[in-house]
Amino acid sequence: MKRTQTDRNLLNFSGGPGALAASVLKQVQASIESVPEVGLSILGISHRSKWFTDLVIETEQRIRTLLNLSEQYHVLFLQGGATQQFSTVAMAFNHSEPNKPKHPAQYLDTGYWSGKSIEGAQLKPQPENSASDIHVAWSGKAKRYTTLPQRAELESVLSPNAPYFHYVSNETVEGLQFKEVMGLEGVPRICDMSSDFLSAPIAADRFSLIYAHAQKNLGPAGVTIVVIKDEMLAKISPNVPTFLDYRTHVRAHSNFNTPPVFAIYVVNLITQWLMSEIGGLANMGAINQQKANDLYKVIDASGGFYKCDVSPAHRSVMNVSFKLAEQSLEEAFLSKALSYGFSGLGGHRSVGGIRASLYNGVTLEAVNELSEFMRDFQQRA
Amino acid sequence: MKRTQTDRNLLNFSGGPGALAASVLKQVQASIESVPEVGLSILGISHRSKWFTDLVIETEQRIRTLLNLSEQYHVLFLQGGATQQFSTVAMAFNHSEPNKPKHPAQYLDTGYWSGKSIEGAQLKPQPENSASDIHVAWSGKAKRYTTLPQRAELESVLSPNAPYFHYVSNETVEGLQFKEVMGLEGVPRICDMSSDFLSAPIAADRFSLIYAHAQKNLGPAGVTIVVIKDEMLAKISPNVPTFLDYRTHVRAHSNFNTPPVFAIYVVNLITQWLMSEIGGLANMGAINQQKANDLYKVIDASGGFYKCDVSPAHRSVMNVSFKLAEQSLEEAFLSKALSYGFSGLGGHRSVGGIRASLYNGVTLEAVNELSEFMRDFQQRA
Repeated sequence: MKRTQTDRNLLNFSGGPGALAASVLKQVQASIESVPEVGLSILGISHRSKWFTDLVIETEQRIRTLLNLSEQYHVLFLQGGATQQFSTVAMAFNHSEPNKPKHPAQYLDTGYWSGKSIEGAQLKPQPENSASDIHVAWSGKAKRYTTLPQRAELESVLSPNAPYFHYVSNETVEGLQFKEVMGLEGVPRICDMSSDFLSAPIAADRFSLIYAHAQKNLGPAGVTIVVIKDEMLAKISPNVPTFLDYRTHVRAHSNFNTPPVFAIYVVNLITQWLMSEIGGLANMGAINQQKANDLYKVIDASGGFYKCDVSPAHRSVMNVSFKLAEQSLEEAFLSKALSYGFSGLGGHRSVGGIRASLYNGVTLEAVNELSEFMRDFQQRA
Repeated sequence: MKRTQTDRNLLNFSGGPGALAASVLKQVQASIESVPEVGLSILGISHRSKWFTDLVIETEQRIRTLLNLSEQYHVLFLQGGATQQFSTVAMAFNHSEPNKPKHPAQYLDTGYWSGKSIEGAQLKPQPENSASDIHVAWSGKAKRYTTLPQRAELESVLSPNAPYFHYVSNETVEGLQFKEVMGLEGVPRICDMSSDFLSAPIAADRFSLIYAHAQKNLGPAGVTIVVIKDEMLAKISPNVPTFLDYRTHVRAHSNFNTPPVFAIYVVNLITQWLMSEIGGLANMGAINQQKANDLYKVIDASGGFYKCDVSPAHRSVMNVSFKLAEQSLEEAFLSKALSYGFSGLGGHRSVGGIRASLYNGVTLEAVNELSEFMRDFQQRA
């Protein structure tokens, strides 16, 4: 089974930007020379052309279909990544109605990325916006981010008066993932789904705002999808600068200023691949679950050689974070893995260890090869 | 000379995103399958990998070399386009020192894009930031944006106390371009060079901040270059949100959050092409001047059949905007041009007419073919 780099490309298990489907890459490659319907390179097509404005509509429509979105939602293609959204969400919605008491937005602290979302929401100290404007309703820090709150447990600490409730659906660094929708009904639910958006079906209609950068499951770095419920637009603070205001981009159909044409084109192809080749999000979710099951099985069957600290109910389908019981073997594991063609398996720089990211573009075959490698490595260790 | 779409790709004269050099597109195409040094698709390479962080340093270094930049400057790769910069510049620098009188930033209104830069700089009304905070020092509106101010004429109306002076070096819609550096010495000079950055040598050391999106001369839409003088960092308002603060991106070497990896990669290849194939900005500038001269000559020699309203001293080398004396012929011109393989010649939606954009990626041969087509069209009209 030995893979070598001379055979072909490495298998990409990176935390992101991650693997994309080979059939999509083929189409992208052809488009660099020419998009047949246009006769120009995808890199030189005007964002005001009918072809591109139609492409945006088509991509939006496919996302609507995949998520079963009602007409109450807008789908936007923005720049700046989830990081820009961390702050934009707070600028837009973490304020009180005039003459009403101020309640802080509530956040979950479930790992590295939710920590970043909280940091980003703590805007510069200003009379109406101080750090205390964010309330962390639950933190997994004391348990070293190895578990997530139960829904019922959480509901008792959430406020029905918060302007919104924010959480991160999947923590890529620690390998944690929510398996059900969190939050109180009646409080706008805002979720960073950057690392599991379009990886499985979700109850999208229970969210007021979803944001996700593309570079995990749906495209290259450089575009961020925002799904926003129409009723949220009226709640946006008048102090948000025009270029960050969701209404600006709703009105302009994501073409207020030059959008990242190429990145949106790749997202278009990925949504087509999800619908036609994969057959929808239920199928994608099943494939992703299979990949994760296979890998967790290798870990759990290793008799403690490989260790995953995450509570089984909250293990991420997207990011399998684990360690070797003998830490001194990790370097050998990573370098041998790379020599066999497995790339991107190093854990996040903040935690170390090993991490296999199993985004949509990672094939079941690639995971099988990795499983075999892991069993083999253990045997020879 | 008849070109048809079946032969090969269209020739791209679009206002942007525009044409890129064919040799660069070849490299980009190969990278979609695999970047040889890495063994992964360019779309799946981690922004934290050594390969990518080295690429950012190399790209920055090439821009430094091309512009002859001193160590006093930082080079950043950001998202959000020039439009985001319109507002960010004002948020950062259009304020007074504590306990000093407030002077407004000064702007030139020279056409469509400088109008947008002024709009973007007029931040939401706030005690310390009202529309009156912007002073338009000169406007070409009364002359329907057909001319630009002389340097001496301008100096008499500029204030030595302004926190900065802002202008747009090239107006793509009207086809106007400054041929010398504007503004008073001693007042920070901020320039939107989106449409002529890296198209010819500039006296970069006379600017405090230059910004330019990539999609005209240096890459695809999705990345914006900022060249900022170190002394400007200390002047940034404390109220700028972290993710918009230039200091954040200086400290993180443009890797604060996931940067647009692919777009930066293409900029890297373009800078290499500029240095190795073209031989530097002096050569690039000469080629671009030749292309523009050729086309303006066709217009001026047409006996009024083609008309360019821009005063000769300010005609843009990048965007040749013109009309047909008989307006009724413009539709026929554009459709015949397209049938011969000339794409993107329609004027900007705000002004109509014809516009040939001659960015770095447009070859002299393509311009020769267009010149021949224009003479031919006149003869048969």
